[in-house]
Amino acid sequence: MLRFTTGDSNDGPVFYLPFAGLSLTIPAMRRAIFPGSFDPVTNGHLDIIERGCKLFDEIIVAILVNPEKQPFFTVEERQQMLTGVLLEIHQGQCTVRVDSFRGLLVNYAVAQKADAIVRGIRAISDYEYEMQMALMNRRLEPSIETVFMMPAETYSYVSSRLVKEIFQLGGIIDGLVPPLIEKRMKEKMMRP
Amino acid sequence: MLRFTTGDSNDGPVFYLPFAGLSLTIPAMRRAIFPGSFDPVTNGHLDIIERGCKLFDEIIVAILVNPEKQPFFTVEERQQMLTGVLLEIHQGQCTVRVDSFRGLLVNYAVAQKADAIVRGIRAISDYEYEMQMALMNRRLEPSIETVFMMPAETYSYVSSRLVKEIFQLGGIIDGLVPPLIEKRMKEKMMRP
Amino acid sequence: MLRFTTGDSNDGPVFYLPFAGLSLTIPAMRRAIFPGSFDPVTNGHLDIIERGCKLFDEIIVAILVNPEKQPFFTVEERQQMLTGVLLEIHQGQCTVRVDSFRGLLVNYAVAQKADAIVRGIRAISDYEYEMQMALMNRRLEPSIETVFMMPAETYSYVSSRLVKEIFQLGGIIDGLVPPLIEKRMKEKMMRP
Amino acid sequence: MLRFTTGDSNDGPVFYLPFAGLSLTIPAMRRAIFPGSFDPVTNGHLDIIERGCKLFDEIIVAILVNPEKQPFFTVEERQQMLTGVLLEIHQGQCTVRVDSFRGLLVNYAVAQKADAIVRGIRAISDYEYEMQMALMNRRLEPSIETVFMMPAETYSYVSSRLVKEIFQLGGIIDGLVPPLIEKRMKEKMMRP
Amino acid sequence: MLRFTTGDSNDGPVFYLPFAGLSLTIPAMRRAIFPGSFDPVTNGHLDIIERGCKLFDEIIVAILVNPEKQPFFTVEERQQMLTGVLLEIHQGQCTVRVDSFRGLLVNYAVAQKADAIVRGIRAISDYEYEMQMALMNRRLEPSIETVFMMPAETYSYVSSRLVKEIFQLGGIIDGLVPPLIEKRMKEKMMRP
Amino acid sequence: MLRFTTGDSNDGPVFYLPFAGLSLTIPAMRRAIFPGSFDPVTNGHLDIIERGCKLFDEIIVAILVNPEKQPFFTVEERQQMLTGVLLEIHQGQCTVRVDSFRGLLVNYAVAQKADAIVRGIRAISDYEYEMQMALMNRRLEPSIETVFMMPAETYSYVSSRLVKEIFQLGGIIDGLVPPLIEKRMKEKMMRP
Repeated sequence: MLRFTTGDSNDGPVFYLPFAGLSLTIPAMRRAIFPGSFDPVTNGHLDIIERGCKLFDEIIVAILVNPEKQPFFTVEERQQMLTGVLLEIHQGQCTVRVDSFRGLLVNYAVAQKADAIVRGIRAISDYEYEMQMALMNRRLEPSIETVFMMPAETYSYVSSRLVKEIFQLGGIIDGLVPPLIEKRMKEKMMRP
Repeated sequence: MLRFTTGDSNDGPVFYLPFAGLSLTIPAMRRAIFPGSFDPVTNGHLDIIERGCKLFDEIIVAILVNPEKQPFFTVEERQQMLTGVLLEIHQGQCTVRVDSFRGLLVNYAVAQKADAIVRGIRAISDYEYEMQMALMNRRLEPSIETVFMMPAETYSYVSSRLVKEIFQLGGIIDGLVPPLIEKRMKEKMMRP
Repeated sequence: MLRFTTGDSNDGPVFYLPFAGLSLTIPAMRRAIFPGSFDPVTNGHLDIIERGCKLFDEIIVAILVNPEKQPFFTVEERQQMLTGVLLEIHQGQCTVRVDSFRGLLVNYAVAQKADAIVRGIRAISDYEYEMQMALMNRRLEPSIETVFMMPAETYSYVSSRLVKEIFQLGGIIDGLVPPLIEKRMKEKMMRP
Repeated sequence: MLRFTTGDSNDGPVFYLPFAGLSLTIPAMRRAIFPGSFDPVTNGHLDIIERGCKLFDEIIVAILVNPEKQPFFTVEERQQMLTGVLLEIHQGQCTVRVDSFRGLLVNYAVAQKADAIVRGIRAISDYEYEMQMALMNRRLEPSIETVFMMPAETYSYVSSRLVKEIFQLGGIIDGLVPPLIEKRMKEKMMRP
Repeated sequence: MLRFTTGDSNDGPVFYLPFAGLSLTIPAMRRAIFPGSFDPVTNGHLDIIERGCKLFDEIIVAILVNPEKQPFFTVEERQQMLTGVLLEIHQGQCTVRVDSFRGLLVNYAVAQKADAIVRGIRAISDYEYEMQMALMNRRLEPSIETVFMMPAETYSYVSSRLVKEIFQLGGIIDGLVPPLIEKRMKEKMMRP
Repeated sequence: MLRFTTGDSNDGPVFYLPFAGLSLTIPAMRRAIFPGSFDPVTNGHLDIIERGCKLFDEIIVAILVNPEKQPFFTVEERQQMLTGVLLEIHQGQCTVRVDSFRGLLVNYAVAQKADAIVRGIRAISDYEYEMQMALMNRRLEPSIETVFMMPAETYSYVSSRLVKEIFQLGGIIDGLVPPLIEKRMKEKMMRP
């Protein structure tokens, strides 16, 4: 049986249908990793995922498990929240799924047969750090490309860290995160 | 007749073959514009095109025609030189073609049914300018995404302008541009 | 006769009304210069002027006359256009007037008895240049402070230069400049 | 009874004296917040306050109380030290007072009926962080403007953190902080 | 007895040999400090030391002892490892020795009769921090100059911190540090 | 005859005097190029040259002859002015001489048997450009190192271009350039 698109192959196969002389070039299936802590996911993250959906056939939103940091939400909570809010965005033909990983990002990306790592860049200082990470990742694994995309300018100053800080100081985070996330943060504050 | 891959459609169609119950999702064909002056094309440009080939099904290397600048090579010469050196790079399954355009980049990108504009970023100062251009382009045409890719670090300081300057001062540009380009620059110098 | 607010004095006088024991401290009148080429004025400029109106009692929008540059609009046209569009913004209690100057900005600012120079900063690269100008201006005239204000993030990539470039390439500049300016640019193009 | 300038109103009132035809426009009273940790206050802080005094009628030097950080001086000590050193600077007609706050800066600024937040910017990296904070603060409270001012270039590298580090390594901090602060730091070191 | 080059004098003496009319100017002996944590030393550090050897007669690789940080290797281990790997680099006529210090760098530099502090700069963000440190160091001790040198571009993203992080996540650090260091890191992991 | 310091050799020779057992290591003679337009020389340039004198035995202040630019002063005038003002600075044991060159800087540096190119860096934007030039120069000629030095912070905003601009607008340039240069600029203005 023919499997036109498959998670196991990124090869953009040229194959031949069993009737006379018809050659078809199927575009390659392209998979990207969008890594992060997502503690919590912000509207800035979702904006990048929506934009990425225009360029990739599959995006794996990959939660980095960092045992050394004390998170606001557990990995399971973050995974569940991401799954919830991703239902609300415009994914087009792209398949978006949520996963988590430990260890080196490029090892994870290779294991997932990804073609690219997508990073949103908000600011110059971000960018310089990201560029160093990207060069190091390329050295560790030359087959994976890092691509940088820009969030809408209204999200240029939104980060998970800042969202948490404002929230804990009693500020309004409406518009910075989806309503579901705001609701979950309030619940978490009441019974942590 | 079915046309699986076509320049007219980027829609990533789900279609049904005329036999029982077989549904196929074909990955979308994705086309990117790589715009520039390419006066001349450098190894840094070629490096970005090779990297872009991993992510796009088609890349249009688009020479910006700027009537207000006095170029080193004519648009025709640049087009011909690009066509020549692109034969030497690893394109994988990607189709790379050379074109030229006048006017707004995003208008050209829309006319070409492109999904993305690819820009190589070498340095922070580059990046800030590029970010402003990308935000403006997005405002002019929200359907086109700009993606930033990094050249190999050995090309981080190579630009067409610098190549020309070094060449005109008698410096060695071997390794900064393909041999063909170096040869053409020497010919141009002798009979401009 | 008492003159409570006056263009000639910024001293924030404590004065005594001619009846028993009533002392009044009148806040100082503060005047700022907002210098630029305004060729043409953009919505980003107007955004900064509106914000400046919250902080200053008077803002002089000062067109720099640069004999070495070939402008799109003459100084008179720019002055007239600025006067027109300034009627549309929210000035609060602030008095905004349009002027033009030649020579050193700080000399002009001193002649106008200004307290401050207002500059909008869009980006990091802007900022570094602005910081150098501000340090030089302070050295030339220590009594004048430069204050930096931020335009709304949607104007972070709008500049007169870019507006003209897009306009001349046939792009839509609606939303980047006020309607009056767009109209005048079209007229100018038809009979320059 | 008339109250010409009042902490409760920033409206720059136009009022009418009860005799014939005399209309007076009183410049608005403008109040700024200069927030920080001031642990300890440096000469760079004092330089910005002096400059701010030229532009505002009242400056509230507001110590941010951060329960998560272990400070060098307590909030009370910092408040007392600030009050002491502010007597030494040139305040002109401006009223400078010291306060402390918890929670969101913009909430505090609104409660204080402030018009602006003043921030000194020393360096590019500072600036980018400050710009993000300012955009977020504007989003949280659009009525408060952030204005950036530049300290004298000799203070461009002076920060409370660096002053403490040098002091603790036995270095000379004379000229970086006022003599009173240096004295208090020495006392603190001897009996913390 | 004559000592032409000596650790006690940097004066570049003009002296007179006791025979007729021969005056000799001996170039000054120049000593630089290359300070850092070196936890562990990377190929980027070694690259800067090699480059520094072209410009200085003596380089003291000075390990900063920071009692507040928990290092990967002890100061003694770092000193021993540095001594080992420095045997492998091209030092030319330069004498390179390893030392450690506590307290202010400039005090150490003065005690060592150094002329300069050498810093490698990899990136813009590095550079701004380095510039502030250099200005502060100059203020603390004007006789010591800081000079900035660039590592090879392939080391622009290599730092001790990143090397440790990759190593601990199981990544390959071959090429980022000398083989000896990689070996010692593995041993350390097995019996810390 | 022995020549201890010589323009022809940078080798830091170990040589043997013709009497018993006395081995002398002579520090290497180190020569640096300080290239620029110097149109005109500023106090910022002189500050870097003074600092460079602490690190090098000889500094060649090398005026770049750029036939495509219309200078304020001719190369001969600049050379004469530099020679004049260099008499006023503290050179220590260093020999400073003035020269001019055409073509590639690294070719000139090699011809002069220089060890290093010295560049003063004022600002981040400067630095990025300088870093790219330095990487390109290293590629063109790996034997020449570029070292970056910082001028005093009071010169961080002084450039030849800005000095000329202020001067032509009638501003005071006293303190930005040496008195001799100011005098020559006035003479030039009167009879260009």
